[in-house]
Amino acid sequence: MKKRKICAVVTARPSYSRIKTALKAIQEHPELELQLVVAGSALLGRYGNAVNVIEKDGFKIDEKVFMVLEGESPMAMAKTTGLGVMELSNVFYNLKPDAVITIADRFETIATSIAAAYQNIPLVHIQGGEVTGNIDEKVRHANTKLADLHLVASEDAKERVIKLGEDEDYVINTGCPSIDIAKEVLAAVDHSFNPIEKYGGVGADLDLSNGYLVVMQHPETSRYKSAREDVLCTLKAIHELNMPTFWFWPNVDAGSDGTSSGIRHFREVNDPKNIRFFKNMEPNDFLHLLKDSDCLIGNSSVGIRECSFIGVPTVNIGTRQNRRKRGKNVVDVAYDTEQIKEAIHERIAKKGRLSEEIYGDGNSGKRIADALANTKLIAHKTIMY
Amino acid sequence: MKKRKICAVVTARPSYSRIKTALKAIQEHPELELQLVVAGSALLGRYGNAVNVIEKDGFKIDEKVFMVLEGESPMAMAKTTGLGVMELSNVFYNLKPDAVITIADRFETIATSIAAAYQNIPLVHIQGGEVTGNIDEKVRHANTKLADLHLVASEDAKERVIKLGEDEDYVINTGCPSIDIAKEVLAAVDHSFNPIEKYGGVGADLDLSNGYLVVMQHPETSRYKSAREDVLCTLKAIHELNMPTFWFWPNVDAGSDGTSSGIRHFREVNDPKNIRFFKNMEPNDFLHLLKDSDCLIGNSSVGIRECSFIGVPTVNIGTRQNRRKRGKNVVDVAYDTEQIKEAIHERIAKKGRLSEEIYGDGNSGKRIADALANTKLIAHKTIMY
Amino acid sequence: MKKRKICAVVTARPSYSRIKTALKAIQEHPELELQLVVAGSALLGRYGNAVNVIEKDGFKIDEKVFMVLEGESPMAMAKTTGLGVMELSNVFYNLKPDAVITIADRFETIATSIAAAYQNIPLVHIQGGEVTGNIDEKVRHANTKLADLHLVASEDAKERVIKLGEDEDYVINTGCPSIDIAKEVLAAVDHSFNPIEKYGGVGADLDLSNGYLVVMQHPETSRYKSAREDVLCTLKAIHELNMPTFWFWPNVDAGSDGTSSGIRHFREVNDPKNIRFFKNMEPNDFLHLLKDSDCLIGNSSVGIRECSFIGVPTVNIGTRQNRRKRGKNVVDVAYDTEQIKEAIHERIAKKGRLSEEIYGDGNSGKRIADALANTKLIAHKTIMY
Amino acid sequence: MKKRKICAVVTARPSYSRIKTALKAIQEHPELELQLVVAGSALLGRYGNAVNVIEKDGFKIDEKVFMVLEGESPMAMAKTTGLGVMELSNVFYNLKPDAVITIADRFETIATSIAAAYQNIPLVHIQGGEVTGNIDEKVRHANTKLADLHLVASEDAKERVIKLGEDEDYVINTGCPSIDIAKEVLAAVDHSFNPIEKYGGVGADLDLSNGYLVVMQHPETSRYKSAREDVLCTLKAIHELNMPTFWFWPNVDAGSDGTSSGIRHFREVNDPKNIRFFKNMEPNDFLHLLKDSDCLIGNSSVGIRECSFIGVPTVNIGTRQNRRKRGKNVVDVAYDTEQIKEAIHERIAKKGRLSEEIYGDGNSGKRIADALANTKLIAHKTIMY
Repeated sequence: MKKRKICAVVTARPSYSRIKTALKAIQEHPELELQLVVAGSALLGRYGNAVNVIEKDGFKIDEKVFMVLEGESPMAMAKTTGLGVMELSNVFYNLKPDAVITIADRFETIATSIAAAYQNIPLVHIQGGEVTGNIDEKVRHANTKLADLHLVASEDAKERVIKLGEDEDYVINTGCPSIDIAKEVLAAVDHSFNPIEKYGGVGADLDLSNGYLVVMQHPETSRYKSAREDVLCTLKAIHELNMPTFWFWPNVDAGSDGTSSGIRHFREVNDPKNIRFFKNMEPNDFLHLLKDSDCLIGNSSVGIRECSFIGVPTVNIGTRQNRRKRGKNVVDVAYDTEQIKEAIHERIAKKGRLSEEIYGDGNSGKRIADALANTKLIAHKTIMY
Repeated sequence: MKKRKICAVVTARPSYSRIKTALKAIQEHPELELQLVVAGSALLGRYGNAVNVIEKDGFKIDEKVFMVLEGESPMAMAKTTGLGVMELSNVFYNLKPDAVITIADRFETIATSIAAAYQNIPLVHIQGGEVTGNIDEKVRHANTKLADLHLVASEDAKERVIKLGEDEDYVINTGCPSIDIAKEVLAAVDHSFNPIEKYGGVGADLDLSNGYLVVMQHPETSRYKSAREDVLCTLKAIHELNMPTFWFWPNVDAGSDGTSSGIRHFREVNDPKNIRFFKNMEPNDFLHLLKDSDCLIGNSSVGIRECSFIGVPTVNIGTRQNRRKRGKNVVDVAYDTEQIKEAIHERIAKKGRLSEEIYGDGNSGKRIADALANTKLIAHKTIMY
Repeated sequence: MKKRKICAVVTARPSYSRIKTALKAIQEHPELELQLVVAGSALLGRYGNAVNVIEKDGFKIDEKVFMVLEGESPMAMAKTTGLGVMELSNVFYNLKPDAVITIADRFETIATSIAAAYQNIPLVHIQGGEVTGNIDEKVRHANTKLADLHLVASEDAKERVIKLGEDEDYVINTGCPSIDIAKEVLAAVDHSFNPIEKYGGVGADLDLSNGYLVVMQHPETSRYKSAREDVLCTLKAIHELNMPTFWFWPNVDAGSDGTSSGIRHFREVNDPKNIRFFKNMEPNDFLHLLKDSDCLIGNSSVGIRECSFIGVPTVNIGTRQNRRKRGKNVVDVAYDTEQIKEAIHERIAKKGRLSEEIYGDGNSGKRIADALANTKLIAHKTIMY
Repeated sequence: MKKRKICAVVTARPSYSRIKTALKAIQEHPELELQLVVAGSALLGRYGNAVNVIEKDGFKIDEKVFMVLEGESPMAMAKTTGLGVMELSNVFYNLKPDAVITIADRFETIATSIAAAYQNIPLVHIQGGEVTGNIDEKVRHANTKLADLHLVASEDAKERVIKLGEDEDYVINTGCPSIDIAKEVLAAVDHSFNPIEKYGGVGADLDLSNGYLVVMQHPETSRYKSAREDVLCTLKAIHELNMPTFWFWPNVDAGSDGTSSGIRHFREVNDPKNIRFFKNMEPNDFLHLLKDSDCLIGNSSVGIRECSFIGVPTVNIGTRQNRRKRGKNVVDVAYDTEQIKEAIHERIAKKGRLSEEIYGDGNSGKRIADALANTKLIAHKTIMY
């Protein structure tokens, strides 16, 4: 029997965590053949060179697609997407996949969707049906309407995709592969890992003996002009708390120049002695770091997903994760230094870490591969109502 | 008070008919300012130079956007769209509109949607909520999910857009501007118009004294490889019927090379004495031609919309208009010479032309302008469920 | 020893004749490996699908690059070139050639040059150093300044490239591969070839027993607005002469819409009974046709090159071949019906077909392969004065 | 009389200094109208936002063109250029200039040349005919072959352009506008300017009472992989000399990531107490800074041009300025810490600042405007030999 060729397009560092165990499972599935495309900011040093991690994990990359316009403005987001459509059209034309996977809701993921759908290639959308705000919200649901098969991460998401007029035979709750990694991390007995030794980072030396914080804050697309101000609120809060802190640089996105310049400025002026800055970390290591941390602060979806499964207290700032299904680990605050400080205090004081299985039980990669092998692949559909 | 700047993007000949009276109404509205962008095949001689008609109608064009890739393959459709995103991003950046209009569901209309939405410009989608098949179906609903305000053409469409999770305050049934033109045509007492004198065309001289047929057949995206064969069925049927016939060349689309080559081949081999071929006609003239015809044959949406209002018998071939709300004027057949011939006979024999108001009552242009002036303009939204 | 990977980019039907025997020789050379990219109009049905001929000739195509913008305007030429730069950058990045070949002087050939030169890949320019007019003139010499190795077609060209400041160690007169094909054609004892049977064509049936003409006329870039008028002069002349004539459609180029529409119009109005129209012919067959013809009319470079070697009388119209080194076979005329008619009469009456070796002796393909195997490959240079 | 519309395209910070006084002179010329396009890195914060300086200088910008691909690799250079061709084609189509100016030899300047030349718009090349190495060398001479009018900066350059086969009626030595600014700076009696107060910068506080150094070092395209190493040599030398130093970040270019990361790394590790880092400075202020400095170090062309006119000692590192005509102020060294240190010592010790007029006498802007008003504008040419 001929294997189904499944082409996955990874466009950014965080997307990789959302698909990694599925890529492994596809690779190992007897009826599937993996085609891997790495594109966009996943190729760029400024955003942590995810491509290196991917290669180190043993994946063969079939195509690299350079498509990111400089400037990190809304205009650059739009042009990057347009360029992505043009480039990925070539890629799919040459690779001739039986199905293409587009992941979640970053702005450039719609380029994958268009390039596949317009060439009548069955399109698989991973992690549709969730709710946030901003441009991600529009992109995610537009991806759903361009896709033929929906592999969602929660029951909540499944219901929503069906309400959007999709055929329920093609909507499958596989859970999120990021939870698979979280499960491995929880299971690991011994992980001899010194983050500073392994990744360097820049800034203060940290004494971790009395606990530590982790911060990951991205700009919000709809308020990208205040990205600098927004990150300064958090920097001020963390600086004043004076607890040892691992701080991660933001993704490429409209506004990340603002976030980055805020961080640089704060460092120049305040030279904070309790913060160390990192560009990137392998997903595995990052989760180990989180697992033992006192609190995650920022607006990363990791706080909502992985941290819910592991049970890491999370202070979620702003509206970026708006309406995403939350577990008990999360408390929401505004972009406000005092609120952030108070919430961190409250989270740290709280007893009893509570874990939940909202986004999967840790076997999502395998479920995704099975769905790709067993579901009929179609490239045309009609709305159900 | 500052006028709202409304930027409409017309990318093809048929889209112009779907928006023309709205453009006029926007132009004349005291609180609105029209910005007009003409793009894609609307600029190309091979597709009838719609741009000339638009200028002759007295519209000032703010930008012309050349974006069509040669080849009319799925690949060319995808690349044209990607290029459109890049080009239109510039255009909106420079024109700084308060809202952008994207029309219906041609593949390249999503370029307008992305370029506007990613730059946080309120996006107005005209004629969402309908149902067809093919890539149009995916594009139309993806446009809906990227758009902030929905001006739909029927009650049926309104319900569907709301089901898609849109806020009903932003879904307004304005009817279709194409019906406005149909209404004017019906009302015209005297229209001294000789199509052959005015447009030339090539092929047979036609004697119109005993009635005539009109054919407009486009390739279907999902079966673009059979476009040549599909058009030959109809050519054979029309040739055999031997009634005087006006035949219109297809739109630019994947497969239109197939349709065109089918027509050219048939002409070379059969030199049909009852068919005259036309590239384009002003919408007004086209409707006058239809009004007095015995039957429209093909798969154009004009048969479903305008002809329903005017009451022109229509033989609709294939699945291109699949599930679009039909009036009594329409009969559906497959790509089959015998079926087509029979259906034309049946339609011509039928007595009583019946007109319906499914897609509007002839005042849609005005309604669209009013909606654009009076609705709050937003650029972000969240799904309603 | 590792073979040198030589990547040739063929962007149009006529370019293929200028490189075909070199491609074969590269393929067969023990120290070289051929990488073949087919791009631009060579992929399009409207321009004769050169890609099919190339595949039939037994070449494996490594990449196909769709890059032609519709419209055939100066704007479309520019955008096609820009798109070509972007696409070919990817191609070279992935193929990692040791050298890239760009052919002659069509507008899009500079895309190949930029994509290679900017990525520090040694660039080989075939057929630099000639002189024409129009945009080709600018493109050809710009290609020379971007290229590192120059394989020219005549002594005249060699001198000119050296005068342009190139290092004479990297300027080699290999002759033109098109002459290799001409030589084979002259040598062929028996070529049982009926052009109408093999290629069809459209238009009149031709009686070839008393000789025939061949016409190939392209638009001139600098006067593309008069392309329609220009071709009508020639059509009128040929129609009036009333000799059986093979007429070939023009290349994709700014203005070819004008030329094409002129031809179509003339056919509709005059229905000429002595002309048959062809889209394309394999180079070999085309030369057989020329060899036995009474005269080649138009502005194709074939009249200057191959016809000079074979000794076919040529009426060269206009300035497109301006200052290209001519043999005795050529007479030059303006775009003027009477002049064209007279010149054809004069050429036909003339006795003694005279062949010359201005553009090579028929072994150019082999010489090019040897030069590519033996010359040091460099990617940087400095002007010699 | 209708004014000639002259469209200048500024793509980077350093290009602006090379054209500024000419832009003023065009603006003020009674027979000329200025159209100003700002593109590429001149629009980006990371490269000093030259666009702000341009607007502050009172110029109205007609179009902004976002075209820079992220990554600063050879691939990104090529794609940026391709995108530039596409974007600038639109711009010229809409602005309809009578002539377009492309400046010097940065990689993306050929995009301006192609977009203009292919649309038959007379192309004016500023500062052709010089000699360097690297990709600049290829681009500069290719620009010459695409251009119709050459306004060069020295006699040496004029001769070289004529040797390249250009018509000497269209080659005019106007000198370089950067010298106009240098002349103003020399003439300024009182320039109350505190660079740190005005521009901030980051790093050490500098005591300027005993003299200071200025460093500006860019990556070399042909050795972009060693950019990091190359800049570390110089950083080490300057650090060891321990003199107060103004250090400027590099231009966007393949390799500037390497240079930047080298600087960042050196700062983290060594925290040099004698260096302050700046992103950008208005050309005027920069020259004032140079005028009073003890030595300029690096590979900027400012050392060759402006510093030759003003008489600032210059240590020129590596081959980036290879074969550019030098004055007595320059000494050349390799990328070698010891050589650099010695050369700086030698320069500082040297008595007698010697100024020369190799690149103009300070009236170039005016001469350029006059040439643009008085020279016949042509869009086609043929090589002179």
